Amino acid sequence: MLRAEDNKFLTEAGPGTGMGELLRRFWIPVLLSEELPEPDGEPKKIVVLGEELLAFRDTRGVVGVIDQYCPHRGANLWLGRNEECGIRCVYHGWKFDTDGRCLDMPTSYPDLNAKDLIRIKSYPVREWGEMVWAYMGPLEATPELPDLEMALLPASHRYVSKKWQDCNWVQALEGSIDTAHFTFAHLSFDKEENEILDIKKHFVNPIARMASDHMRWIAEDPRPVIKISPHDAGLTIAGGRLTGGDSIYWRIAQFLMPFHAYAPSAMPGESIFGQTFVPVTDTNCWIYTYAWNPERPLTQAERDAYDRGNGVIAEVDDHYVPLRHKGNDYLIDRKLQKTRSYTGIKGVSEQDAAVQDSQGPIADRTREHLGPTDLGIMHFRKTVMDLARALQQGEPPPQAAHQDRYAVRSGACVTSKSKDLPAVMLERFGDVAGFVGRPRIAAAE
Amino acid sequence: MLRAEDNKFLTEAGPGTGMGELLRRFWIPVLLSEELPEPDGEPKKIVVLGEELLAFRDTRGVVGVIDQYCPHRGANLWLGRNEECGIRCVYHGWKFDTDGRCLDMPTSYPDLNAKDLIRIKSYPVREWGEMVWAYMGPLEATPELPDLEMALLPASHRYVSKKWQDCNWVQALEGSIDTAHFTFAHLSFDKEENEILDIKKHFVNPIARMASDHMRWIAEDPRPVIKISPHDAGLTIAGGRLTGGDSIYWRIAQFLMPFHAYAPSAMPGESIFGQTFVPVTDTNCWIYTYAWNPERPLTQAERDAYDRGNGVIAEVDDHYVPLRHKGNDYLIDRKLQKTRSYTGIKGVSEQDAAVQDSQGPIADRTREHLGPTDLGIMHFRKTVMDLARALQQGEPPPQAAHQDRYAVRSGACVTSKSKDLPAVMLERFGDVAGFVGRPRIAAAE
Amino acid sequence: MLRAEDNKFLTEAGPGTGMGELLRRFWIPVLLSEELPEPDGEPKKIVVLGEELLAFRDTRGVVGVIDQYCPHRGANLWLGRNEECGIRCVYHGWKFDTDGRCLDMPTSYPDLNAKDLIRIKSYPVREWGEMVWAYMGPLEATPELPDLEMALLPASHRYVSKKWQDCNWVQALEGSIDTAHFTFAHLSFDKEENEILDIKKHFVNPIARMASDHMRWIAEDPRPVIKISPHDAGLTIAGGRLTGGDSIYWRIAQFLMPFHAYAPSAMPGESIFGQTFVPVTDTNCWIYTYAWNPERPLTQAERDAYDRGNGVIAEVDDHYVPLRHKGNDYLIDRKLQKTRSYTGIKGVSEQDAAVQDSQGPIADRTREHLGPTDLGIMHFRKTVMDLARALQQGEPPPQAAHQDRYAVRSGACVTSKSKDLPAVMLERFGDVAGFVGRPRIAAAE
Repeated sequence: MLRAEDNKFLTEAGPGTGMGELLRRFWIPVLLSEELPEPDGEPKKIVVLGEELLAFRDTRGVVGVIDQYCPHRGANLWLGRNEECGIRCVYHGWKFDTDGRCLDMPTSYPDLNAKDLIRIKSYPVREWGEMVWAYMGPLEATPELPDLEMALLPASHRYVSKKWQDCNWVQALEGSIDTAHFTFAHLSFDKEENEILDIKKHFVNPIARMASDHMRWIAEDPRPVIKISPHDAGLTIAGGRLTGGDSIYWRIAQFLMPFHAYAPSAMPGESIFGQTFVPVTDTNCWIYTYAWNPERPLTQAERDAYDRGNGVIAEVDDHYVPLRHKGNDYLIDRKLQKTRSYTGIKGVSEQDAAVQDSQGPIADRTREHLGPTDLGIMHFRKTVMDLARALQQGEPPPQAAHQDRYAVRSGACVTSKSKDLPAVMLERFGDVAGFVGRPRIAAAE
Repeated sequence: MLRAEDNKFLTEAGPGTGMGELLRRFWIPVLLSEELPEPDGEPKKIVVLGEELLAFRDTRGVVGVIDQYCPHRGANLWLGRNEECGIRCVYHGWKFDTDGRCLDMPTSYPDLNAKDLIRIKSYPVREWGEMVWAYMGPLEATPELPDLEMALLPASHRYVSKKWQDCNWVQALEGSIDTAHFTFAHLSFDKEENEILDIKKHFVNPIARMASDHMRWIAEDPRPVIKISPHDAGLTIAGGRLTGGDSIYWRIAQFLMPFHAYAPSAMPGESIFGQTFVPVTDTNCWIYTYAWNPERPLTQAERDAYDRGNGVIAEVDDHYVPLRHKGNDYLIDRKLQKTRSYTGIKGVSEQDAAVQDSQGPIADRTREHLGPTDLGIMHFRKTVMDLARALQQGEPPPQAAHQDRYAVRSGACVTSKSKDLPAVMLERFGDVAGFVGRPRIAAAE
Repeated sequence: MLRAEDNKFLTEAGPGTGMGELLRRFWIPVLLSEELPEPDGEPKKIVVLGEELLAFRDTRGVVGVIDQYCPHRGANLWLGRNEECGIRCVYHGWKFDTDGRCLDMPTSYPDLNAKDLIRIKSYPVREWGEMVWAYMGPLEATPELPDLEMALLPASHRYVSKKWQDCNWVQALEGSIDTAHFTFAHLSFDKEENEILDIKKHFVNPIARMASDHMRWIAEDPRPVIKISPHDAGLTIAGGRLTGGDSIYWRIAQFLMPFHAYAPSAMPGESIFGQTFVPVTDTNCWIYTYAWNPERPLTQAERDAYDRGNGVIAEVDDHYVPLRHKGNDYLIDRKLQKTRSYTGIKGVSEQDAAVQDSQGPIADRTREHLGPTDLGIMHFRKTVMDLARALQQGEPPPQAAHQDRYAVRSGACVTSKSKDLPAVMLERFGDVAGFVGRPRIAAAE
């Protein structure tokens, strides 16, 4: 539970807000690279952390992220002509490059060089892991790009997409590091489509029908023990469930400052899923989703499956809006909810979106009642709010200086009850923080 | 004409408002029973007097009206699974019964009994007259259900539906007790569809073409004399029109506290129409509509006619939205308006909705000019505002204690000019208030 | 660049605002005459300068512009029956004429003559140049109708329409008197549709492909010299472009107080285009568009071409909404933008709307950087703001008293470099202000 003013502080990301300034100290994904497919192609209007910006790929292939409005008379540069290493306003021909410099000002006296006096807002841009990243903070504090493992790997090892969500980014992220909710929100049965189920029999004792031990343990234990461990890039958040024997089934998520989260499901060798939560306004966000396999390229069958929605990856339309979204009640199927799926909603990503959106455009944390399974969420909130307040006092977030420490993994394992979290991490990842360093396979593969 | 602050007082029904608290001292229809057709069926999001609530029918068939949001993390319980006498949040499995009790809190330590400390908002619910009613006031002041005659009768004697309206509930109710507007708003001619009418001839002297004496009297006299008589349950509001002879054609409406109104048209033996106006927000409302015949079951032909819209009953779609509504300008037909219908709009209910909606989302009563035909409206306003102000001083509305006095009828008659309203009521209903008491036919028929 | 408070002052036109009161000192087009095609036809809801009004054509053919709401109970008179020289409210039958007088009040006592005490808002109305004009200012200051040449001519000489626009009227008008923007916003090539163009070759040196000398001069010189000359009715705003020889290509626009603007393109003998910018709310406007030829009737071929959109005349739907508008991004064609049109948008009017709308619902003039080509805009702003402030001090706008001086023309010519603007005007129009007086051809033709 938060006080109203703390909830506001936590969830507002516009310019000048505490949390907004913290986010601006890190590189921020603003588009997928595929959204600007060609040099001199159509520019894109984007809204990032409440700022209206224009992204375009120039003749050289370089992406610019600049102010959306021409400084002459305020026409929108989105209408502009993307030509010869700059975008030219179609109202009177002023032209700007990716750095916001005015290259041509045909309405002024040529000898005045008035164009040299004009510079519009522009942010440093990089392409990394098939995403376009911008840095919107003070230039003197520009960090390195984060060593996300999926970006360090060759493209063949990763799948990258994004999805729209109709709620504040914080509650979406909170859902992603909450390992407890799997017991209900993602509960379903593996069975023949045409088999009639007796609701009472199955939901009173659903375990019998679970496809795997893992699903059975998740269904059996709705109150995983939560363990948290801070590290250089963020927080390790682990949930341990009983297995009925003397072992624990650990699911270990990673939160990486300020808005990345890795899913806890992957067993060794399996692909890992991650999400990056980027505020558009304070009541909606883009969630960048990706899967990667450190050990091998993804197969075409896997890519096809991801295209159809898989894990945190949603099934999206041409505008990256999930096919099952708030506007159509996620195509909830109440008959399915009675028989084979706890939510009646198809897809893990869509189940997440449903519960997160349902908290309201901005979740009202003054009315909540947190308990032992919410420990990860409490730590996350305290971490980001403390860092945002420290930044307001002049102290930059230390994680921004440790982008080389972002190469961590999340994942699951089954191990002895007697091990504490550091021992589990060592066993599972060979490092207490899950740090794996730069991959052996060259990204240039 | 009201002062701006009085108009605000009259029309606001949210929690804590004067009028809202008055309404909350009575049972309030919140759904039709048919909207929750089966045990453990889909729950319904409802908004009543500005409160977001969830209604669901549990395994036993009992309806609950509870808070819409889970107190754990604020997920919407509408997504929940309606199972085993309670609705379970699909985020982390907290489960609530129709009384708002937490039946299960799987995320907490079992031995703490934390669930016993959690109780969410819930309102007492009854089903009565094929409607689901909730009581949203202080429990110690819970009244009986109102003895509406249609609810006391066997189901075969009544027809119950509802309709959406795009304006504040008060102006809709005012329209229903305004017996004067029939002269214009509901004026039409009975004639062959393909007969060409000369507008001047007919609207200058429309009376010749009226189907009945009643319609002729209504068309001839746009200024009925209005007589008001308060009684234990509300107000009798009668309008008397000249007949050309030495008799008066009386049309007698009933207003029952706080938001029921019966139409004045029924001649003895005819079915009676009633409406109950329930605020959703302050700018729209659900109007529950019903017809009943005290003396005999309704025929299938009558039910079919009601389904197609009849009197105050609108022709509605699957969501109870009138087919002819504000969004489509009530399918107004200007050619029809020139020839056969004063409004050009089909349907008495739709004609009412058109004029009432057209007063704006909340009618601006500071600009109005009331006259002798508006006496009923003036009395209604004074009655409810006085009662709301008395309640603010601690005095509950006396009608809440007289739900047994609600068994009244409305209706029309033709009688001697010399009779005053009490004498007319005695002649028409056998009682000065139109009170008929509990019906002789058992409701259990 | 304006201060925020000046931008607000310039762009707000509601009742009581400085600019709104200035506009109200002139006749204002509120509809096309064709929108009220017949006596006793359907009334029209209109919003003019933020006021909700009702326009109707009565039995005599006279148009009234009155309050939209009945003073009795506030029902909307748009639902009313347009009958026998007045519109009758369908709620209770109160009836009003075009002057706002209450002709009938059937709900009151006949002998009280209560209707004589009721008068609703009504504005003087005239039909002029196929438009319905209202005067919304103080009656004692009612001016004459403006001597717009197109209205003085026989109907056969003119074409009149209108178009919806999704932005504040001021920035739309500013675009119309800005002769510089043609170089980019309206630049296109005349060539075969199926010829493949090399973008670099053509936009680096587009002049070679221009259809005419005029287009070539426009394309070659993006910085016309701007000359301004005030006159009795407004401002002459001329832009002179180099021709490569010792002559100047002048394009001369006219701004007529308070919201008329004539396009600068017409060479002698060609039809002239004009626009009148009428605020609806502060974030959208109706633009009345017209073309006229002083010397001859328009041909049917010309009328057909105008129907399909031509110059400032847009291609509109049945509701006068341009087919290519903000909601569909003006059907911008990025391929076309690469090859044959600087904007990729079809139509001069639509190109104008695109850049003007793109400045935002109300252009933010605090961020602009005006230069030498914006001189006309600066003069326009100063003129209207000075006049609005003078009116606030009690001094009415002198142009209102000179409606006989509105018979001016705009147009283009090519003449010697040595001539100053008065000499150019004399040569082109025979008058330094472009004044041509009442036409020799009688309007009654």
